[in-house]
Amino acid sequence: MLKWYEEKEANNDIVISSRIRLARNLDKYPFSSIMDEKEAKELVEEVKPLTQVIAEKEDKPYYSCNINTLSDMDKTAMLERHILSPDLANKNQPAGIIISEDESVSIMINEEDHIRIQSIAAGLNLTKAYEMANRIDDITNEELNYAFDKKYGYLTSCPTNVGTGMRASCMMYLPALTSAKMIPKLIEELAKFGATIRGTYGEGTKSLGTIYQISNQKTLGASELEIIDNLNRLVLQVIRHEHKRREYVLSINHDELEEQVYRAYGILKYSRQISSEDAMTLLSQLKFGTDYKLLYLKKDLNIHQLMMEIQPGSIQWKIGKTVGRSTRNKMRAEFIRKTLPEIK
Amino acid sequence: MLKWYEEKEANNDIVISSRIRLARNLDKYPFSSIMDEKEAKELVEEVKPLTQVIAEKEDKPYYSCNINTLSDMDKTAMLERHILSPDLANKNQPAGIIISEDESVSIMINEEDHIRIQSIAAGLNLTKAYEMANRIDDITNEELNYAFDKKYGYLTSCPTNVGTGMRASCMMYLPALTSAKMIPKLIEELAKFGATIRGTYGEGTKSLGTIYQISNQKTLGASELEIIDNLNRLVLQVIRHEHKRREYVLSINHDELEEQVYRAYGILKYSRQISSEDAMTLLSQLKFGTDYKLLYLKKDLNIHQLMMEIQPGSIQWKIGKTVGRSTRNKMRAEFIRKTLPEIK
Repeated sequence: MLKWYEEKEANNDIVISSRIRLARNLDKYPFSSIMDEKEAKELVEEVKPLTQVIAEKEDKPYYSCNINTLSDMDKTAMLERHILSPDLANKNQPAGIIISEDESVSIMINEEDHIRIQSIAAGLNLTKAYEMANRIDDITNEELNYAFDKKYGYLTSCPTNVGTGMRASCMMYLPALTSAKMIPKLIEELAKFGATIRGTYGEGTKSLGTIYQISNQKTLGASELEIIDNLNRLVLQVIRHEHKRREYVLSINHDELEEQVYRAYGILKYSRQISSEDAMTLLSQLKFGTDYKLLYLKKDLNIHQLMMEIQPGSIQWKIGKTVGRSTRNKMRAEFIRKTLPEIK
Repeated sequence: MLKWYEEKEANNDIVISSRIRLARNLDKYPFSSIMDEKEAKELVEEVKPLTQVIAEKEDKPYYSCNINTLSDMDKTAMLERHILSPDLANKNQPAGIIISEDESVSIMINEEDHIRIQSIAAGLNLTKAYEMANRIDDITNEELNYAFDKKYGYLTSCPTNVGTGMRASCMMYLPALTSAKMIPKLIEELAKFGATIRGTYGEGTKSLGTIYQISNQKTLGASELEIIDNLNRLVLQVIRHEHKRREYVLSINHDELEEQVYRAYGILKYSRQISSEDAMTLLSQLKFGTDYKLLYLKKDLNIHQLMMEIQPGSIQWKIGKTVGRSTRNKMRAEFIRKTLPEIK
């Protein structure tokens, strides 16, 4: 079964993925932050059987596991692919996860909230992601009772999530706005419309390979569809800005950009050891080059998929053991060399 | 006929070439610096017929021309290949040149001195270069009367050349000493032994691609063979220093150097436009990598020959017309792409 990011439509030139996250709590347990060990264990055991129910109703494979059975390497690889959150990975109490084989849906158990349903769709497709999350939410609600208040909506551990309990986000690739240093201005503008933009690995992290996540701030006072519609409009505006800037940069610097793209390809094609930071920057430049037809590859290449596969955890996952940075850098370079198609 | 730099023995890993230059003046003319237009013209016309005599005695093709018949492009290409000196190229008075087809011998007429005989041999081979220059000098002296003083030796326009009138030099590739910032120290050391080191394009020029020229300072008070012997010993010492430093650097930084070499290859292999400065630096790194077996090419490559062929003048010479910098950069990149063999 293809992973979500292996799907063709993932090759949107600016929006890599659309994601919906729903925060839910069960009425019979205290919030995760004040839960004791025994209650946490009960919660996990009560939610895990959902796996079979969802698998049947959705008619595709789902798996579950307890977080404490995962090795550090597994956790890192899952973090890199956004299946796990850092909070869940580092949880001291019993916690669990349910994931679909294609990794488009994951349900975290006993993270900040009892249940966090997350769904991802390739490209700009918040509606598809929302429909997935919504179906899982309905199935879950048939089996378990949510903590819900008629006035406030879904009750959540952190007040910023009360209401719909929903966060919608898009992962966007913004090299032109980044190199024009227009991201701080964008942060200001988006804040006025209730949205936020940050590096791909969560709040406060710096953006790797000029990839950002744009998401709604408020969860209360608007319906799910209004939130999605608002974010969708904002994302379309950012796309226009990025496109405009790319065209401007191309019009004044075509030759320099072309050269940068070819050099990036040359380095990636012949490197013997490369850090994930260097690789992300060069792959970003290569993506820009293929999107803007500065360079043609002989075969299609899903660069975003490659970006995920070369993260430290994923590299180690492939060989099934933990290795040092220098070995990882060599394996990463070898994997990239083998994966990159020739150029036309 | 192969150019001297196309010969196999040019592939010495440190000494690219050995060169001898003899400064000579004819007794019947005033020195070049105080000569009038008419005398300069007479000098050129008197020396030029030497071409046939030398060609016959040496049994290989020689050509001659007046400098004012050369285009700027021709001059640039000849400067880059050290056939011409900047002084001769920019001369306002009549001046000429005689060169052998393999470019191993050139005789400049009315440069700083009336006659400057220059000979080049590949690798460290000052004796071979000296024997060539000496033969040409003997032939010339049979035809023309030199200004010679029993006490001082050959009389020259500049007093620093009086005596043997000889300058011996070696072009050396010193990347390890350069990156260790050991060149200033080397300059000091060599000065103590009457030798000087400078960038390849003459005094005060900065070294391109970490290539330097080491030559004797004094021309008076020692015989030609003593000068050659002294320089030879100094060059052998510099070779030892460079080798030692390379081995040290390789022992502590093998992986980083290997990566640098592969990246250099990757950029050269895919670049679409490259300045001569960038190309020289990357080709130097590639040369280091092939010399030290960090990277294997599928076919032999004379990197020093390639370095000469990608200089601005040589690039334009190939197509027979003057073009702007940006076009040259594109042609240079294309030429390098086509010339570089694949790696094993």
